Amino acid sequence: MAKELDGFKLEQRHGKARVRVGRVWRSSDQGGNRRHFLVEWKVNISLLSNCLPSYVRDDNSDIVATDTMKNTVYVKAKECQEQLSAEEFAILLGKHFTSFYPQVYTAIVKIVEKPWERVSVNGQPHEHGFKLGSEKHTAEAIVQKSGILQLTSGIEGLALLKTTQSGFEGFIRDKYTALPETRERMLATEVTASWRYSYDSVSSIPKKPLYLNERYLNVKQVLAETFFGPPKSGVYSASVQSTLFQMAKAVLSRFTDISSIQLKMPNIHFLPVNLSSKDNGEIVKFNDDVYLPTDEPHGSIEASLSRFWSKM
Amino acid sequence: MAKELDGFKLEQRHGKARVRVGRVWRSSDQGGNRRHFLVEWKVNISLLSNCLPSYVRDDNSDIVATDTMKNTVYVKAKECQEQLSAEEFAILLGKHFTSFYPQVYTAIVKIVEKPWERVSVNGQPHEHGFKLGSEKHTAEAIVQKSGILQLTSGIEGLALLKTTQSGFEGFIRDKYTALPETRERMLATEVTASWRYSYDSVSSIPKKPLYLNERYLNVKQVLAETFFGPPKSGVYSASVQSTLFQMAKAVLSRFTDISSIQLKMPNIHFLPVNLSSKDNGEIVKFNDDVYLPTDEPHGSIEASLSRFWSKM
Amino acid sequence: MAKELDGFKLEQRHGKARVRVGRVWRSSDQGGNRRHFLVEWKVNISLLSNCLPSYVRDDNSDIVATDTMKNTVYVKAKECQEQLSAEEFAILLGKHFTSFYPQVYTAIVKIVEKPWERVSVNGQPHEHGFKLGSEKHTAEAIVQKSGILQLTSGIEGLALLKTTQSGFEGFIRDKYTALPETRERMLATEVTASWRYSYDSVSSIPKKPLYLNERYLNVKQVLAETFFGPPKSGVYSASVQSTLFQMAKAVLSRFTDISSIQLKMPNIHFLPVNLSSKDNGEIVKFNDDVYLPTDEPHGSIEASLSRFWSKM
Amino acid sequence: MAKELDGFKLEQRHGKARVRVGRVWRSSDQGGNRRHFLVEWKVNISLLSNCLPSYVRDDNSDIVATDTMKNTVYVKAKECQEQLSAEEFAILLGKHFTSFYPQVYTAIVKIVEKPWERVSVNGQPHEHGFKLGSEKHTAEAIVQKSGILQLTSGIEGLALLKTTQSGFEGFIRDKYTALPETRERMLATEVTASWRYSYDSVSSIPKKPLYLNERYLNVKQVLAETFFGPPKSGVYSASVQSTLFQMAKAVLSRFTDISSIQLKMPNIHFLPVNLSSKDNGEIVKFNDDVYLPTDEPHGSIEASLSRFWSKM
Repeated sequence: MAKELDGFKLEQRHGKARVRVGRVWRSSDQGGNRRHFLVEWKVNISLLSNCLPSYVRDDNSDIVATDTMKNTVYVKAKECQEQLSAEEFAILLGKHFTSFYPQVYTAIVKIVEKPWERVSVNGQPHEHGFKLGSEKHTAEAIVQKSGILQLTSGIEGLALLKTTQSGFEGFIRDKYTALPETRERMLATEVTASWRYSYDSVSSIPKKPLYLNERYLNVKQVLAETFFGPPKSGVYSASVQSTLFQMAKAVLSRFTDISSIQLKMPNIHFLPVNLSSKDNGEIVKFNDDVYLPTDEPHGSIEASLSRFWSKM
Repeated sequence: MAKELDGFKLEQRHGKARVRVGRVWRSSDQGGNRRHFLVEWKVNISLLSNCLPSYVRDDNSDIVATDTMKNTVYVKAKECQEQLSAEEFAILLGKHFTSFYPQVYTAIVKIVEKPWERVSVNGQPHEHGFKLGSEKHTAEAIVQKSGILQLTSGIEGLALLKTTQSGFEGFIRDKYTALPETRERMLATEVTASWRYSYDSVSSIPKKPLYLNERYLNVKQVLAETFFGPPKSGVYSASVQSTLFQMAKAVLSRFTDISSIQLKMPNIHFLPVNLSSKDNGEIVKFNDDVYLPTDEPHGSIEASLSRFWSKM
Repeated sequence: MAKELDGFKLEQRHGKARVRVGRVWRSSDQGGNRRHFLVEWKVNISLLSNCLPSYVRDDNSDIVATDTMKNTVYVKAKECQEQLSAEEFAILLGKHFTSFYPQVYTAIVKIVEKPWERVSVNGQPHEHGFKLGSEKHTAEAIVQKSGILQLTSGIEGLALLKTTQSGFEGFIRDKYTALPETRERMLATEVTASWRYSYDSVSSIPKKPLYLNERYLNVKQVLAETFFGPPKSGVYSASVQSTLFQMAKAVLSRFTDISSIQLKMPNIHFLPVNLSSKDNGEIVKFNDDVYLPTDEPHGSIEASLSRFWSKM
Repeated sequence: MAKELDGFKLEQRHGKARVRVGRVWRSSDQGGNRRHFLVEWKVNISLLSNCLPSYVRDDNSDIVATDTMKNTVYVKAKECQEQLSAEEFAILLGKHFTSFYPQVYTAIVKIVEKPWERVSVNGQPHEHGFKLGSEKHTAEAIVQKSGILQLTSGIEGLALLKTTQSGFEGFIRDKYTALPETRERMLATEVTASWRYSYDSVSSIPKKPLYLNERYLNVKQVLAETFFGPPKSGVYSASVQSTLFQMAKAVLSRFTDISSIQLKMPNIHFLPVNLSSKDNGEIVKFNDDVYLPTDEPHGSIEASLSRFWSKM
């Protein structure tokens, strides 16, 4: 290949992005209940494969068409007779592409799940009615031809806010510093989380149905509860950094099959409103009451916490 | 003015859009509970005023600066010592602009409220912790200098879906028609609703605190429950049109202080997946199981239903 | 009908939104040149029609399926053997729907055209190569069954900025005012324009091929040149209002077949940067050099100018 | 630290995102011309620094406040007395943060430049008038405390399309394949490019003013011209992969100070329109004329090409 590439080195991947699929499972029990289950996924597939001739010699004989990848999503969704998690579907696709095609050595499958939630009517769960919620469940499986697996789950768009029990003091003050110190501010963020499981093969994942969906809900709960603290008094946050660390540590401490977690927690500012003018003097004076929320600019704090033995 | 305008006619308005404000109220009762209340609003102000000289003679003496409008939002938010609804804040601003400035004859104030919801931790509502939900509460007040009021509330982004009990049959078939008839399809939509109250002055609105917030929640519930039908069997939808009409009628029947309601209900298609090819024949055959959800294109069904005596 | 509606009044429309179509025309001349022409349109169709039974009696027999509307877009695009403007295609669709279906009394067709521009390579226009530009051409035709036509063209996203020759003075100063007066500021906006033609039937539109595309380009040029003034010294803007009026007037003065024009010109602020702190005093002092551009909030100035005899 | 972290490993960074700055330079020559120059940048700063105590001990004494970073952007923009490229400004900020703060060992500064382009009026360049173009220039500088530099430039949103001279044949056919082979299709993409310069210190970058802006324009031109081929007949593309490789190779061959280039080229499909139904048979038959453009799903082809000696 070296000769063909004229002394250059090529790294490449190709795939299909934004493949949307909805899957409905219709169950009925003896009591005549016909409960439907629904998932809506946006699937991104990316294949690492031996297909250099398509780049350098106009020879596509080693190319899996991205249209074929799309079709495969639908074929495999149909084959799933029981409801499964986004993680399991990502793994299933990854295993297919790496085992079916000799050319493909690694498959990277990412899924974002739309947060359809079963509605209640008259206080009862509806058999077939769903409403869209807010934050999203994500999953990524990286599958090698050898069967080695990297499995990551995550959350997108988890917006949390507390109106007190947050401050920021004692930071570096220099000639560029204007921010006052405070022990009383709003703290708002939109958490993006992703955590890597320690399972390195499909067979090592617990067989319990929808186990990883349950995990997702549990991790989300631990993150939120650590952010907020007890319902009565909350917990003081000395910085986004400190709160982020507590959240990450709580997840790793609680869930032993998670080997590392990454958190991105933008500091979405609610600026104290103070207004004054030459003519009028003080127009509005802040008293922990009126804020200007803004997304631009925002602080960007991100970190990953892992067990020492982690391979991530 | 006619002369200045060289035979043209001018209609104009000016204002400030995307004014963001957060307001926190901190209450404490005798038992030592310190519950915080929070709203986050995006305010749009538009003034109809006599300020033609600014257009034709470079004379700004009748112009309310849009920066001043922005400041006013913060001043008025501060003055609100008790929590109030977006509708009440819109009215309050509208009344201010039309009464404070001789030039302003009409104020149009629109507010979109971010759906911050109080979180629960350990099963208890948190004193100061909030999480972002999904659909949004909107409000619009059109206030005349005379005091006449048009008050509209609404919902943005209420995404609803049912996996069955929907069909579409008996429509016009002609040489451009390819859609098969069906009694079994997904029905998904993202409702945008706005309803006009019959109150035509501030004094006629019930004085009960947060009355219009409660109304908002009730209307939303009626819309959703009419869409879905009973939890056990649902209700059959013969078309988006039919379901929309039932929803609108339910709201007007139930809430006598609402004089009209407008609903926009795009038909967000979940296409049945059938795949085949020349070589392979059938690849995927649809069996009410695998769908392709798409936003583009979508049906667009909208209607407003009003009482005959409505002025809308 | 009144009885069926239980004393309510219904206004309704339905259609198909976001129908995307690309159309290529391949020409070749005697010299062997094979120049391709391309349009990419996003079409929104909305029909006002007599189809009340679909709302109140689950009877769809008067409904034009939105899927059929979509198909029609493609059939009609195919039938266009010569390149045509978005306006002409909107009219053509509107005429079809109102004449083909007895139930349809009005068709509203809106088109947004993607700004594909022919590229040049080695200084020569490319036969079949295109690159996406910025602002977009829009068109709307409202066609009545009687043949009466309302035709509107427009521009979306025309972002203009001048670094000087703009000020704002002499506006109302009161206790909410903090904005200083100035004769030197940035002026930035994103123009949304729409202008109504005086043609009230198809037959009255000039037959010249692509006449309305040429009009679009000419109106855009007049708007921009009036905004900027001469290349050497520009022209002073005393307010967005004043500049908007000059722009609207220039269009109506120049193009006699345009009966009215609406301009929305948000004032996108480039705030002077002044920074100081308690500890450090002045950190940055503004000297017409460093700005903070922001979209939130922005001023919103909009107006429509029409000839007195205009029907708009 | 190990003890404080309870056996966990932490990797972290913090910064300020979406810092927007506009900078105007006003020049005047002897002839009385006063030409203004303008840039508008969105700056993202991310600092790798020794500040573990803020995470684990609520001690912020090693934290550079993100508000301070924001202020620094404005201070430094002001200090730039001559127009400079986004790359130079990113480097300048990176050097500041790594040299001013002992705690900071690496600074990552990314800039996206808004494509303001000088307008022409009456065929002459305007002294102070600008209009927004389409694709964006990006820059990233990673600066180490040691002075070692990684400098990357890029393009975002370069949408290119050709109506012919594209095909896709000879790919793998299996039971999931439905795509027909073709030698005649549309080819549309939105190129995201980033190329790494071989300069590993500030002093090695050519001193010529705005050298890197010129480079940006030249790279963009080479990419586009390779995509399109000669104006008269174009060049055949056997796959996105093949075209991408030709484009990358052309850049590396032409610009010796670029050590590697990454291209992401989604295959944005313009699907042939064929419509038929049971009742009507064929409704639209494709003849290289009518297309359905769609962004969802799209192929995703990406690759990086580097010289063998590259460190990237």
